[in-house]
Amino acid sequence: MTKIVLIIADGLGDRPIAELGYQTPLEAATTPHLDRMAKEGICGQMHTIDVGVRPGSDVAHLHIFGYPMGEAYSGRGVFEVLGVGMDLQRGDIAFRGNLATMEGGKLKDRRAGRMSSSLVIEPGMKVQIEDVTFLLSPAVSHRVGVIMRGPGLTHDILDVDPHNTGEAPRRKLAKDTRKESQKTERVINAFVDHMAAYLCNHPKIKQLKAEGKPHGNFLSLRGAGEHIHLLSFKEKYGLTACCISGAGLYKGVARAVGMDILNVEGATGTLDTNLDAKVKACVEQLPKYDFVFVHMKFADSLAEVGDFKGKKVFIERIDKSLAPLLKMEDTVVFFSGDHSTACSLKAHSGDPVPAVFWGPRTVVRTDACTSFGERACQQGGMGHFKGLDVMQELLNLAGKQHLVGN
Amino acid sequence: MTKIVLIIADGLGDRPIAELGYQTPLEAATTPHLDRMAKEGICGQMHTIDVGVRPGSDVAHLHIFGYPMGEAYSGRGVFEVLGVGMDLQRGDIAFRGNLATMEGGKLKDRRAGRMSSSLVIEPGMKVQIEDVTFLLSPAVSHRVGVIMRGPGLTHDILDVDPHNTGEAPRRKLAKDTRKESQKTERVINAFVDHMAAYLCNHPKIKQLKAEGKPHGNFLSLRGAGEHIHLLSFKEKYGLTACCISGAGLYKGVARAVGMDILNVEGATGTLDTNLDAKVKACVEQLPKYDFVFVHMKFADSLAEVGDFKGKKVFIERIDKSLAPLLKMEDTVVFFSGDHSTACSLKAHSGDPVPAVFWGPRTVVRTDACTSFGERACQQGGMGHFKGLDVMQELLNLAGKQHLVGN
Repeated sequence: MTKIVLIIADGLGDRPIAELGYQTPLEAATTPHLDRMAKEGICGQMHTIDVGVRPGSDVAHLHIFGYPMGEAYSGRGVFEVLGVGMDLQRGDIAFRGNLATMEGGKLKDRRAGRMSSSLVIEPGMKVQIEDVTFLLSPAVSHRVGVIMRGPGLTHDILDVDPHNTGEAPRRKLAKDTRKESQKTERVINAFVDHMAAYLCNHPKIKQLKAEGKPHGNFLSLRGAGEHIHLLSFKEKYGLTACCISGAGLYKGVARAVGMDILNVEGATGTLDTNLDAKVKACVEQLPKYDFVFVHMKFADSLAEVGDFKGKKVFIERIDKSLAPLLKMEDTVVFFSGDHSTACSLKAHSGDPVPAVFWGPRTVVRTDACTSFGERACQQGGMGHFKGLDVMQELLNLAGKQHLVGN
Repeated sequence: MTKIVLIIADGLGDRPIAELGYQTPLEAATTPHLDRMAKEGICGQMHTIDVGVRPGSDVAHLHIFGYPMGEAYSGRGVFEVLGVGMDLQRGDIAFRGNLATMEGGKLKDRRAGRMSSSLVIEPGMKVQIEDVTFLLSPAVSHRVGVIMRGPGLTHDILDVDPHNTGEAPRRKLAKDTRKESQKTERVINAFVDHMAAYLCNHPKIKQLKAEGKPHGNFLSLRGAGEHIHLLSFKEKYGLTACCISGAGLYKGVARAVGMDILNVEGATGTLDTNLDAKVKACVEQLPKYDFVFVHMKFADSLAEVGDFKGKKVFIERIDKSLAPLLKMEDTVVFFSGDHSTACSLKAHSGDPVPAVFWGPRTVVRTDACTSFGERACQQGGMGHFKGLDVMQELLNLAGKQHLVGN
């Protein structure tokens, strides 16, 4: 039984950088394992959503997993709360919450110095506003998963988070005069006020403030999404699947499509994440699962602060970590990013991402590519393809594709 | 703020021509500026509508601007009358009118020797038939913009123009027995009869006839289209935009999507058009606009009469005119055609058009292309793409693309 491994190096692609001799961080990096995969596999350029379209990470992963956003996506909050391990029911509205620091009615720090939310938010914490229950759970650093459960609510509202420091949090959230919009705005504002009072009076926050340290005296909400039931990987593809990821969002998307979540020690989603442990865990899980998804976060985070040197070095770490995978037999591996993140823009870009399908010599048709990179993969035998093509091609290579017609 | 320039060389692509050593006119032409753009930019092959589809100029431009024909197109007349500067109201039906020469009830010359319509048609001229007002305005050479305004009309009718000389103009125009089809046929026939009488009795036409010169004694109608309100470039992309074009149709499409129309002296849309003046005007407008569209017409017209040598020479003139643009900084330029026009067919073809996206070295990923042409661009890093992809990719390269998802 051929196994499938899907590895996403977040924000892998980039643009030419003058200081790197007009190479991208990936092109400048020394990547013997990726180069070997390019030589033994078939390469291409992936437009995760479509040509020129600039994908968010949530929608990008949905598309790579084969779930078009029009059917599968209403807002990021859904995947954030699933990633924290919270469970969603039909009609639930989910948010990404951020501890933030307010001063004089304005947001001074939208992330409260990335303080740990577990200092002030207990798992299972609930707040009741009218007939609506808010459920909270601490997430990585300043993040908090928030579910809003009750009748007559909508996810089609603005973020409380104004997305700029120095601005007041939004209180006008309704986009229209519908009853559900008005009720949702009212209960969110009451909840936000309740949480501000709770945080300001919390001994830990008082202590941090007294010590002059970053302290979260406000809970900001963003990315409202309504739970949409998705077919699981087992139902859609007949594959048992597991996810190895440090960062919560990707665990959330994986949970939404029914993958088991494997928590690997040292897999933090931050710069010090243990990539070797992730790949080791992947190799260990392959006898148990048909499909293993491995997410490697931090190249994206480095590009978002413009650190092209750091991104290059991190990509070299990714490359090193892949060695054990290339010893696997009867395994098909897809390696790419979810999108490009341009160091020059400090943001996701709509440029395609280099990609490789690697597997046994009798399975994968090789091509002209002998190294892996944005421009090297322009010669790839897969040409240009979309995120929605990835699972179809993996099923095909693994000999698990069903017949269309007869 | 990165600026965007979109240049369309009408009918740019072609097929191999024996007399040119099986090169196309573009391949045979000496084009140092385009070759430089190919080398410094990223190339590809554009299927304006779709693979093998043979695009009309109106639909081709709509697609390049990002407006799919199913939503944005009902007939060419709309863009012809907008291009003449006429204004459309909801429910208006617009036509391209042609002065033609009739003899013995048959069309002898469908273009009346390309005589100037302004000799006989005054701007603002109106004809009333029943409760329907026909508005007329002279256009380039034999062309006349015609708007039909009134209740109970349809654009879904046949052309009066039979599209072949030696045939009688059509009088059966209705495609069905619906009341609006019957009324539209009746008022058009009455209008056409009225105009034939008007033209035959016009002193100028009598004079031309007496002198044995081409004379338009008939006004033929074609390309009925109903006005469809389109989002402007500002609304759709957030871009202020202007159009530099000699030919009316392209001005019309540009007006339909809310571009400002810039009239450049010497930009005639004919063989003697001043391409240098157009590019100079483009460079001058760039500080004022986010987006400038430049249309260069005549390679298409030469191919439509099979003049491959003339097309080659005209392409060399286009190439020369581009020099000032390549000195622009912080500017992304797209250069292609709206479709191929094959000299061998003397008609538009469904072959893809070579295309290049050019811009700063830190923005555009280069590729293997070092020259610009139909076959050279087969190596391009953009691969095959559609007209509808162009604006998305330009927004992406200019760093103006919004995020899809989160």
